[in-house]
Amino acid sequence: MKKIWIKDIKDYEGQEITLQAWLYNKRSSGKLHFLQLRDGTAEIQAVIFKGNVTPEVFELADKITQESAIEVKGTVKKHDRSKIGYELDATDVKIISGSDDYPITPKEHGPHFLMEHRHLWLRSLKQNAILKIRHRIIKSIRDFFDNHGFTLVDAPIFTPNACEGSTTLFETDYFDQKAYLSQSGQLYMEAACAAVGKAYCFGPTFRAEKSKTRRHLTEFWMVEPEVAYMDIFEDMDLAEEFVEYIVQQVVEHCRPELETLERDVSKLENIKRPFPRISYDEAIEILHKKGNDTPWGEDFGGDEETLISEEFDKPVMIHHYPMSVKAFYFKQDGEKAACVDMIAPEGYGEIIGGGQREEDIDKLLAKIHEQGLSEETFDWYLDIRKYGSVPHAGFGLGIERTVAWLCGLSHVRETIPFPRLMDRLKP
Amino acid sequence: MKKIWIKDIKDYEGQEITLQAWLYNKRSSGKLHFLQLRDGTAEIQAVIFKGNVTPEVFELADKITQESAIEVKGTVKKHDRSKIGYELDATDVKIISGSDDYPITPKEHGPHFLMEHRHLWLRSLKQNAILKIRHRIIKSIRDFFDNHGFTLVDAPIFTPNACEGSTTLFETDYFDQKAYLSQSGQLYMEAACAAVGKAYCFGPTFRAEKSKTRRHLTEFWMVEPEVAYMDIFEDMDLAEEFVEYIVQQVVEHCRPELETLERDVSKLENIKRPFPRISYDEAIEILHKKGNDTPWGEDFGGDEETLISEEFDKPVMIHHYPMSVKAFYFKQDGEKAACVDMIAPEGYGEIIGGGQREEDIDKLLAKIHEQGLSEETFDWYLDIRKYGSVPHAGFGLGIERTVAWLCGLSHVRETIPFPRLMDRLKP
Repeated sequence: MKKIWIKDIKDYEGQEITLQAWLYNKRSSGKLHFLQLRDGTAEIQAVIFKGNVTPEVFELADKITQESAIEVKGTVKKHDRSKIGYELDATDVKIISGSDDYPITPKEHGPHFLMEHRHLWLRSLKQNAILKIRHRIIKSIRDFFDNHGFTLVDAPIFTPNACEGSTTLFETDYFDQKAYLSQSGQLYMEAACAAVGKAYCFGPTFRAEKSKTRRHLTEFWMVEPEVAYMDIFEDMDLAEEFVEYIVQQVVEHCRPELETLERDVSKLENIKRPFPRISYDEAIEILHKKGNDTPWGEDFGGDEETLISEEFDKPVMIHHYPMSVKAFYFKQDGEKAACVDMIAPEGYGEIIGGGQREEDIDKLLAKIHEQGLSEETFDWYLDIRKYGSVPHAGFGLGIERTVAWLCGLSHVRETIPFPRLMDRLKP
Repeated sequence: MKKIWIKDIKDYEGQEITLQAWLYNKRSSGKLHFLQLRDGTAEIQAVIFKGNVTPEVFELADKITQESAIEVKGTVKKHDRSKIGYELDATDVKIISGSDDYPITPKEHGPHFLMEHRHLWLRSLKQNAILKIRHRIIKSIRDFFDNHGFTLVDAPIFTPNACEGSTTLFETDYFDQKAYLSQSGQLYMEAACAAVGKAYCFGPTFRAEKSKTRRHLTEFWMVEPEVAYMDIFEDMDLAEEFVEYIVQQVVEHCRPELETLERDVSKLENIKRPFPRISYDEAIEILHKKGNDTPWGEDFGGDEETLISEEFDKPVMIHHYPMSVKAFYFKQDGEKAACVDMIAPEGYGEIIGGGQREEDIDKLLAKIHEQGLSEETFDWYLDIRKYGSVPHAGFGLGIERTVAWLCGLSHVRETIPFPRLMDRLKP
C-alpha cells in the first residue's frame, strides 16, 4: 500500500494508501472516531468506523493523544465539506510513537509560553500557514530578480566596519581583530552592480537594538537589489513592480493559508500598480493636516508612518527626504536626498528603504568627513567612484515586515521560524 | 534610441541602440578602434570606423582607459566569430566617467593583491562567470526543494549553544548573555520537519577555524534539508537526485561561463545517477589497497577523501561510519552511525554530510551524557523525541565546495563574492 503525503491525496481517490502523520485533534461519536491528521504538507480527517477495523484498533484509536505519530491505512474518499476535499476511510491505525501531555493544547496560551515552545508551536495550523506564506514570499522575491536578469551576489556577514551607525552593532572577536555582523549588504552591492549590472543579495542582517517593540528583531532577513545606470525614479518603478509581484504571487498561491489566518484577501488583491508617490514635503503636509506636528527636517517614526499610510489603500512611496536625516551615501539633490521609503498600508510600517547613491567622489568624501567617518574604512567603497563611476540605485526590503503585512500579524515574532529578540535567544 | 542591456542584444539586430557599459579592453588598427564592452550581463565588441564618427569621437575613442564608464550608440550587426554572435557598429561614444590607473591590468597579479581588490576583481570575466555559476547553483538548489514539496524554514544564526564542538565558535555579547553564530541549522530543521514534513534551510554558517587551507572559509553557505519519516537509504536517494539536478542545471544553463573557466564539461555531463555507494568498511579497504594506512575507526581527512574519490568518476557516497567518529545525534546502527558523506570527484572533497537522526530519546540522552554535553542545553531538542517522535533524516551541502567543484577552482576563496578567511575580513 503506497505511502503518500497528504497534499498529494487528490491523485489517489478510491485507492488504498498509507499516511504517516501526527494527530492534531480528535472527536468520537458512538461507533465513529474522527482523527484529524497533519503531516506538515496538509491536513485530512481519517474516519474510523467500528465495523471497518478490528476491536483492538477501534479501542486504540480512542486513546491516541495529541501529537502522537501514527500510521493510518485506508481508502481515499471525496468529501466536499473538508478543506482538502477528501477524507480517509481507515482500515488500520498504528502508533509510531506516543505523546504524553503535549504542552500546547487547544486552549489559549500566553505569548511567552508559546515562544518558549516555538519548536513545537510551529506545528500549529496557523504557524504552519505563516511558514508557507513566508516561503512563498521568499520564492517570489528570488523569482522576480532571477527573471529580471539580476545576478545573486551574496554580501558578507562579517564586516570590518558599520554601514550605518555603530551603536547597534553586534561584535565578535575575529582572530586578532574585531568583526561586526552586517546590518546591510548595500555597500557591497554597489561594488557588485559595477560587476554584474543588476545585483541582489539576500541574507540575514543584525541589529543590536535595545527595543522591545512589535516591529524589531535582532536578526532579520533582507533582500537588497542594486542596479547600475539606474536613477531614483527607475528605482521607484522597480520597487513598485517588485512589491506588486510578491503580493499577487501570495494571493495566487496561498489562498488556503490566508484563509487559515483569516486575512482579508481583498485588501491584498488591491495591491496593483501604480502606487502613490509623495514627496517628503507632501508627507509633512499630510501630517500637519492630521494634527501631527512633526517639524520639517525631522525623520518619521512608526506613528508618522501609520498616519500617512491611513490616507492610502496601497503602499505609499515617500521620496526626497532632507539630506540631513539620511545616510551619507545617498545622492544629493539640493538639500534633498534622492531616496525613497515605501510604507505598507494598514499600519504595517516601512517595508522598503532605498534610493540613488552618490556617484561623485568629491561629494561623497565631503559627506564622509562631515559625518566624522573614517576615509580609510571606506577606501574600497570609494574605489567604485574612482574607476568608471556611474549613477546607480537600489533598495532593501525587510522580509519579516512583509510577512507581517501579508499575513496580517500584529507582531513580527511570528513572522520568522525562530525569532531572536532582545530577551529571546532560545530555542 | 533605446538603452538596452548587452545580454538582450540578439533582439535588436539591425536596430540603432544605446549601450551603457564599461571598457574592459581595446585595440586599434589605423582607421578602426575595437572597444570591448561589458555591462555585467554580457560582453560585446563595438567597432569605431573613422568614416562613421566625428573626428572628435574617433580621437576620444583612442584615449578611453580600462574600466571607464562609457555610453556607445550604434547599430547591432551579426558577427559570427564573436562569443555573443553580434557586434556594435558605433556612431557615437560618450565618456560617463573615466578611470585612471585601474589596478587590475591584463598582466598577472598575485592572489593577495587580487583579494585586496576583490570589489574590483569581481568585474573580470572569469570572476563574473563564477558569480553566474554560483547563482545558478543556488537557484537550482531552491528550485529542487521547492519543486519537491519542501518548505523553507530559515534557521536562526544566533544560537545559545553549539551543535558540534565549541572550539570553532564565533561568540558575541547578546545583551546580558552570550550568543554563538550558527554552524548548522540541523537541530532546528529536525524540529521543523515535524511541523512541515519536508523542511530546508539555506543560509550562512560560521566556523572560527584556525586553518589556512584551500578548502576553509570562516563564513560559508549551506543548504540543509530534513525530512520526517525518512531513513538513511531514502536520504541517499534524495542526495543523489539533488546533486544530479544541480550539476545538470549548470551544464544546461552555464555553458558560456564554463567555457570562460575552461572547465571540462564532459566530466560534469557524466554526473548522472546512480552514484557509487560504499560503506566505511569498504572505504577503508580501498585506502589500504592504495597504501594509505588509516586504521579502522578513524575519521577521514582531505587526503583520504581524495584517494577514495580517485576510484570513481562520479560523487561517491560513503555510509555507516563508526559511531565513535560521528556526532551524538546520528541514529545508532550497532557500532555504526546511519550517516553518509558524499565526496565530489576530481579531488574536490566532501560536499555533503548527513544521515538519519536518533529518534529514541533514551539512546539520545545516553549519548548526550556520554559526550559530557548539557542536557538542559538540548531540552527543546529532546522535546522532538517526546512528542510524536518519528524516523527522520537529512543532510547539509556546502555551497562553496560545490561551486569550486563545478567551476574547477583549486581554492574556495574565488567561490564566494566576498570571502572571509582567517586573515581576510576586507573588503
